Amino acid sequence: MKILVIGGCGFIGSHIVDALCARGLSLRVLDRSPERFRPQLPGVEYLLHDLTRAPLPPGALADVGTVVHLASTTVPATSNQDPGLDIAENLIPTVRLIEAMRQRGTRRLIFLSSGGTVYGVPERDPIPEDHPLNPISSYGIVKLAVEKYLYMEQQLHGLDYVALRASNPYGPRQGRSGVQGVIGTYLRRHLHDEPIEVWGDGSVVRDFLHVTDLAELCARAVLSTRTGVFNAGSGEGTSIARIVELIGRIVGRETAPVFRPGRSFDVPRVVLDVRRAAESFGWQPQIPLSQGIEDTWAWVRQQEEL
Amino acid sequence: MKILVIGGCGFIGSHIVDALCARGLSLRVLDRSPERFRPQLPGVEYLLHDLTRAPLPPGALADVGTVVHLASTTVPATSNQDPGLDIAENLIPTVRLIEAMRQRGTRRLIFLSSGGTVYGVPERDPIPEDHPLNPISSYGIVKLAVEKYLYMEQQLHGLDYVALRASNPYGPRQGRSGVQGVIGTYLRRHLHDEPIEVWGDGSVVRDFLHVTDLAELCARAVLSTRTGVFNAGSGEGTSIARIVELIGRIVGRETAPVFRPGRSFDVPRVVLDVRRAAESFGWQPQIPLSQGIEDTWAWVRQQEEL
Repeated sequence: MKILVIGGCGFIGSHIVDALCARGLSLRVLDRSPERFRPQLPGVEYLLHDLTRAPLPPGALADVGTVVHLASTTVPATSNQDPGLDIAENLIPTVRLIEAMRQRGTRRLIFLSSGGTVYGVPERDPIPEDHPLNPISSYGIVKLAVEKYLYMEQQLHGLDYVALRASNPYGPRQGRSGVQGVIGTYLRRHLHDEPIEVWGDGSVVRDFLHVTDLAELCARAVLSTRTGVFNAGSGEGTSIARIVELIGRIVGRETAPVFRPGRSFDVPRVVLDVRRAAESFGWQPQIPLSQGIEDTWAWVRQQEEL
Repeated sequence: MKILVIGGCGFIGSHIVDALCARGLSLRVLDRSPERFRPQLPGVEYLLHDLTRAPLPPGALADVGTVVHLASTTVPATSNQDPGLDIAENLIPTVRLIEAMRQRGTRRLIFLSSGGTVYGVPERDPIPEDHPLNPISSYGIVKLAVEKYLYMEQQLHGLDYVALRASNPYGPRQGRSGVQGVIGTYLRRHLHDEPIEVWGDGSVVRDFLHVTDLAELCARAVLSTRTGVFNAGSGEGTSIARIVELIGRIVGRETAPVFRPGRSFDVPRVVLDVRRAAESFGWQPQIPLSQGIEDTWAWVRQQEEL
């Protein structure tokens, strides 16, 4: 049976494809654009298709036993600009996917949810999966609504699903648009001698997870029979100020950041309790933050040289 | 300032309009069709408009201080037939309404949520508002998602909102389509000497609230400054078997019901803990179930004679 990876050409998706290929699994990748940073991989079947514009093409689920769904047209920072569009492009196509899987008899779905947004302003630290869910971004509400549809499908029609509530993934191949991930954004700004901008006073704390650690967790979820909702983070909190400092040291250019007003949809601190994923999938994050930043810095420099 | 009642020509809406008119308030009613069972009320402004097809018309929010939003194109029994359509017709227009209110500076919104579906299969009895939220119908997920957008809007932009999680409302003017409410459906079947159909074995328990009690609560919420989520039920559970029996006695025609297979999206028992609404709004349900059924029976007979 094949694995269909929706959004498999994106930042996280491309690493999940790597992790699944490394296990010798047969993959079909569906994405609206090809990978940005490398050519198509041999042995992988690619379908260029935009799920926000048309239903799943016929044959996309042929011989597929498991779907991994990572596609999203928004990030937390952009989703509140037009929540109606966020719902139309991300919630509705996912609900249609669930229906198509039911009709086709495809039983297992790994969905990339968001540990950084579904909880809202945390009441506990680290945050367990049963923490109240009060998102303050449309991105978080849409991820939560998808989780609810997955739960309903499990109860009514027996879907096997895993929702991975990812924290802040970072690493090679993260987009350069500036909205996806501070670590890549800061590294590129250093490379071009541009100022480092911080939203707020730098005290905001996030749980940074190297993308290959997230991809490894996802691959284990694909191969497991476990179901449910799992936090996917490093379990450790790092302030933006500390990220600025670490990056400055690694790139050998320590400059004072430019502070910008805080953003209303940014919660002050998110650190995930990742014991459930660790116990269920025998998984542990492997890459320490400083090593992961060095790794990303090497990739950013290499990209710019191309 | 006016009150805009969206869905004010529907079953619940028409009673809320009555309760607000009785307080001498100035009303604008927006609905996609006129009231079915009576002519337009003098002194009320009516706007015929379908929010699922076009945004709020210009002027709809002019001089409006409070919006009451009751419109829904689905009921629990129909929403799972096409969840994507449910989202498109109910979630997206509500999110657009919230945005229009923000732009116009309209600060208060009373939203009709669903105590019968947002909790899913209850773990406690009666159900308090902080019970886990695991709906097994798209109707419940959409109501829950709206509540989350309301919460976000309150946190980010200061919206004052009340979400009323209504149980099973019944009473005069409930639709005759057969999908909305067992009490009205059974009474009509008795009137025409048709068999009474029961989904499942009759043991399903619901919390029936007379629509004028719900309308009274809604009117109090309009006039209050309280915000948040409130259960809106009678606080008492009644089985479908007991409803069949009560109705048989009231109409003077006791027949054995026809049992149909249970429906997957029906949870076994929902009884709401309504203390929060009682304490916050000084409200108590006034109409006992037997009196409410007699009242509805009188209305059903009168309608059929017209």
